[in-house]
Amino acid sequence: MTGPQPVRIGLIGCGRIGTYHATTLARRLTEADLVAVADPIEASAQRLGESLGVDWLTDAQALIDDPRIEAIAITCASTAHAELVIAAARAGKAVFCEKPMAMTLAEADRAIAAVEEAGVPLQVGFNRRFARDFAVARDAVSAGRIGTPQLLRSLTRDPGLANPGAVPPWTIFTQTLIHDFDALNWFNTGSRAVEVNAMADALVAPEYKAGGLLDTAVVTIRYDNGAIAVAEANFSAAYGYDVRGEVFGSAGMVQAGRPAHLTTSLWTAEGMSSPTARTDTELLGDAYAAELSAFCAAVRAGTPTLVGGQDARAALRIALACIESVQTGGTVFVRDADREAAV
Amino acid sequence: MTGPQPVRIGLIGCGRIGTYHATTLARRLTEADLVAVADPIEASAQRLGESLGVDWLTDAQALIDDPRIEAIAITCASTAHAELVIAAARAGKAVFCEKPMAMTLAEADRAIAAVEEAGVPLQVGFNRRFARDFAVARDAVSAGRIGTPQLLRSLTRDPGLANPGAVPPWTIFTQTLIHDFDALNWFNTGSRAVEVNAMADALVAPEYKAGGLLDTAVVTIRYDNGAIAVAEANFSAAYGYDVRGEVFGSAGMVQAGRPAHLTTSLWTAEGMSSPTARTDTELLGDAYAAELSAFCAAVRAGTPTLVGGQDARAALRIALACIESVQTGGTVFVRDADREAAV
Amino acid sequence: MTGPQPVRIGLIGCGRIGTYHATTLARRLTEADLVAVADPIEASAQRLGESLGVDWLTDAQALIDDPRIEAIAITCASTAHAELVIAAARAGKAVFCEKPMAMTLAEADRAIAAVEEAGVPLQVGFNRRFARDFAVARDAVSAGRIGTPQLLRSLTRDPGLANPGAVPPWTIFTQTLIHDFDALNWFNTGSRAVEVNAMADALVAPEYKAGGLLDTAVVTIRYDNGAIAVAEANFSAAYGYDVRGEVFGSAGMVQAGRPAHLTTSLWTAEGMSSPTARTDTELLGDAYAAELSAFCAAVRAGTPTLVGGQDARAALRIALACIESVQTGGTVFVRDADREAAV
Amino acid sequence: MTGPQPVRIGLIGCGRIGTYHATTLARRLTEADLVAVADPIEASAQRLGESLGVDWLTDAQALIDDPRIEAIAITCASTAHAELVIAAARAGKAVFCEKPMAMTLAEADRAIAAVEEAGVPLQVGFNRRFARDFAVARDAVSAGRIGTPQLLRSLTRDPGLANPGAVPPWTIFTQTLIHDFDALNWFNTGSRAVEVNAMADALVAPEYKAGGLLDTAVVTIRYDNGAIAVAEANFSAAYGYDVRGEVFGSAGMVQAGRPAHLTTSLWTAEGMSSPTARTDTELLGDAYAAELSAFCAAVRAGTPTLVGGQDARAALRIALACIESVQTGGTVFVRDADREAAV
Repeated sequence: MTGPQPVRIGLIGCGRIGTYHATTLARRLTEADLVAVADPIEASAQRLGESLGVDWLTDAQALIDDPRIEAIAITCASTAHAELVIAAARAGKAVFCEKPMAMTLAEADRAIAAVEEAGVPLQVGFNRRFARDFAVARDAVSAGRIGTPQLLRSLTRDPGLANPGAVPPWTIFTQTLIHDFDALNWFNTGSRAVEVNAMADALVAPEYKAGGLLDTAVVTIRYDNGAIAVAEANFSAAYGYDVRGEVFGSAGMVQAGRPAHLTTSLWTAEGMSSPTARTDTELLGDAYAAELSAFCAAVRAGTPTLVGGQDARAALRIALACIESVQTGGTVFVRDADREAAV
Repeated sequence: MTGPQPVRIGLIGCGRIGTYHATTLARRLTEADLVAVADPIEASAQRLGESLGVDWLTDAQALIDDPRIEAIAITCASTAHAELVIAAARAGKAVFCEKPMAMTLAEADRAIAAVEEAGVPLQVGFNRRFARDFAVARDAVSAGRIGTPQLLRSLTRDPGLANPGAVPPWTIFTQTLIHDFDALNWFNTGSRAVEVNAMADALVAPEYKAGGLLDTAVVTIRYDNGAIAVAEANFSAAYGYDVRGEVFGSAGMVQAGRPAHLTTSLWTAEGMSSPTARTDTELLGDAYAAELSAFCAAVRAGTPTLVGGQDARAALRIALACIESVQTGGTVFVRDADREAAV
Repeated sequence: MTGPQPVRIGLIGCGRIGTYHATTLARRLTEADLVAVADPIEASAQRLGESLGVDWLTDAQALIDDPRIEAIAITCASTAHAELVIAAARAGKAVFCEKPMAMTLAEADRAIAAVEEAGVPLQVGFNRRFARDFAVARDAVSAGRIGTPQLLRSLTRDPGLANPGAVPPWTIFTQTLIHDFDALNWFNTGSRAVEVNAMADALVAPEYKAGGLLDTAVVTIRYDNGAIAVAEANFSAAYGYDVRGEVFGSAGMVQAGRPAHLTTSLWTAEGMSSPTARTDTELLGDAYAAELSAFCAAVRAGTPTLVGGQDARAALRIALACIESVQTGGTVFVRDADREAAV
Repeated sequence: MTGPQPVRIGLIGCGRIGTYHATTLARRLTEADLVAVADPIEASAQRLGESLGVDWLTDAQALIDDPRIEAIAITCASTAHAELVIAAARAGKAVFCEKPMAMTLAEADRAIAAVEEAGVPLQVGFNRRFARDFAVARDAVSAGRIGTPQLLRSLTRDPGLANPGAVPPWTIFTQTLIHDFDALNWFNTGSRAVEVNAMADALVAPEYKAGGLLDTAVVTIRYDNGAIAVAEANFSAAYGYDVRGEVFGSAGMVQAGRPAHLTTSLWTAEGMSSPTARTDTELLGDAYAAELSAFCAAVRAGTPTLVGGQDARAALRIALACIESVQTGGTVFVRDADREAAV
């Protein structure tokens, strides 16, 4: 077999998305070679490792230190992301980290510094950049096909809120809308958010609002090129996972995403209908594979990844401003210092 | 008020489509002035005339001879069309004639000859040419956007077959598909049908098949430029009036028509749905008005109409070949003599 | 001719939209009888009156007092709307008033009081309610098909900003987005806006920003049922008039509007394309006719109009809150007193 | 690892589609275990075997006889299909055979007999049955959602005709449209073709017509339940691979396939546009994987495959009737004896 050697990867975090990524690495991507998986919950690590026929362990640091492993995929709980990025970087390993890379700007800055110091590649799991319909839309924007962006929209509507009591506070901003914030930053390339206003509520599961749940949110963002963007999320889309983007500019508009998953249409006396229900892995499965493939390619070629630490920080900055906006009931003006750092 | 004087029109045939056209002429088009209506059934003429506030009479020839009237709209039963075209032409009146203009090639030739001899304008009611989506599609073909046509499709699916016992034999070819034959001839401009094969049946109301009903048909047409076309009809579209066209060529494809009538879409756990039910006047109301407006403009300006007697004859020729194909069970090769005449 | 007598209407304001409405009343609607038109600019009144063959005058009050006239259509400059509503009501005439009905809440309250005192019908020109795709979408919401509304969106993108220097301040809120505010109020029936945040800018014609121009705006509205809505506008849609609505709820979503105007599609090596360019009267022509037809029907039947003074006030309240939000840079909390009045 | 053991497969034919299937079996499907590949051209076998890390050989019979192998995938030239099916069946191996399974009815009957005698599973490569949009459409038909089928359409437009001189005679019927014939038979379940009429030509590469090339065809098929179907093919779709199906019945219509491959849309002053260009493996890659996965599942579970020898024969019967129709210029009535066999 010709071509570059597969990238030898260790994965930390054997939950739902970790299992999905591990399976993609082991089964679907010839450019990746999953060596081992780790999870503090032994049963999770064992189940995943055995099902894929790879080593499994409970100690993340041991996996990071494994000399066979050249890249670490971090897919565990978000609160541990930044420290693991730092640990992996210090061990000289390339890093793929699920979003959010960090929970605070300070954490983000430390992670970015560690990665820069170590000179290792870092890619953050903003999968929407690797969805073909979004990528083609963004190419159109970059090529000037719609002129200067003036109005943008990105939305995420997730079909399920299985256990509202278990959702950590501010999840809708730091975990869900952070995808949309990155998508908007990416569509409006080269511009920075300067004002953020968020309205949010618990409309899906109002009985959990007192406990801090927010399941519905609209965020308005003003960028320093004048463009105004809206990001919108909700945790209960009856018709299936719905992810869309729209960029309107001086010369036109581009849209990506369509909330149906098949081209089948049924026409009867009741009208026309099409199937819609789908999960995130159905909608974005190819994007999940594409982001990992791109990571492997960057690692092997020594080229920059397509979405790095500053991108993670810029999206996080907006998420944190949303929290502040909800707490104060007003618009948050992003400080210069923050913006400087976000360059 | 400036602009040209309205065209003073008399209309013959106060049935469903006659009533529709008369109302359009009287109420919607400032370029037309409906002077009188005629129908051998006195009650029909009276009802329509009084409702629109115009003269009404039972004698078609008297209407034709009325010196106030400069143009005749023929919207009565098809079997009377050709003779009325001839009578109107002989009286020096411009003629708008619903399709089919004639029931036989001989009739068609006599009508064409009378119109030519009198030097009056003649327009045939192939409304699809005046539907904007079809016209834009045909413009794309004419502009060479799809290259040389190779495969064409036109279909008519009518939602209702209210009284199958009252449908005259061969109606599906001479009354319904004749629209599709003209659309195909028009899309494949400059080419002539050389082979026709028809398969037809009574599938909607099979109990009327013995009486000659055909309610479902597929017609294949080979043109002398090599292109192969399919025309398709059925009398019972549960989801509403469905009229579509498709032209595929060496450089691409163009489509017109969509079997939904609103842009509303509903997305629920059952999937996506859109309303569809509609009648022919809902689907084609603007085209009906546009064809009468174009007729008035041609009459007033002295310019040729956009669809004349030879077009009517060419479509009829295909309809007659369909009848022959059904009767013989084989493909009909259109004779040179017929084709010559159809130039 | 049977059926009710046409409603005898006088129209005030012979500009672009006045001319359009007058033509619809005179030419297209059998249920209306345009008696006279008035405009302080004599040439405008004369041109329109003569082209339609109706009386014309310069004195609006004289038209209001004309005993032949039973209903007044107000289509002049917005600043004169409220006083003319009051004058017409005092003369006992039914009133159709273009949006906005008033420029201040005080004006609105005076107009509403005058209409109530006189007991005359009043309809405001929120045409989107009469667009079939929007009406079907709203029917779906009313029927509970999407459950409880949680997120709403309404947008207006106008293709042309011919003369940016002539646009009065705050036009984007009081003239353009007021349509969207009404559409959102109507979709979210029975709920009232309680918070309003607006971000706006002059991105199309930035050189006019100093003069007060705003040509791009995003407005976020929180309703008292928890739903959060976004209204968005821009004055320079390269691809044609774009008006859309979307309501997302606990059981699904409904959408209305599609930024293409024909069903034609062209498929070539460059991909698929469809025509889009269109004007407001192309997009909404049927809705303009439908709202006037509904007004005539309500006048003749003595039934309530479908959109009255309180609807105009509720939309205006949001527009005024937008102005305040732009001026203060923060979110505006609609006061109880305002909301009381808006019931 | 739990679950059934992977099916150990040997593949014969290392050309384009063989390479694609082999890669799917080796890399994508955990339920398959590709053991070896064979091709009479040593370089082809070696290249594919080495790239996938599996054994390779030139002797198909040796691969069939390999005791490690329990199932044979036949992906070589069509003329060898039937004999390899027979050889594999005689060796007691399960068989996946690309379409067409045979070139003559006699061949088909011998292959079917061998498979029945050996009692081995046989699946034919009609991938469209495994495309999700087609499968959902067919489910709707089976569930009676469109009533009784009356009109059907299936089309294949292939973007490329790289080497017209190398296309064997009748390829458009036996290799391309055979997919459509099977799709139509499958949509119109339980009915048999009784009349076939074909019109075909060399319109893409007319200079090869004398050598027997046909690159454009329209086939009309009458079924014994009265339904009339149209199958259509062309070898030069400028806009990319286009595969669509439509079934119209007494209660509605269902459609599958859309000639665009992304949900991205671009809206500018030139109108709306979307990307289209795509290959067969792009359009049908998931269906290719799904058919092999279903084959493995049937082999492991001992359940019938979803598309077997009689299905292959029924589609071939129509393809052969097309050849006869082109040769005679008329409609071919399928003989009772043929139909009996096709039960």
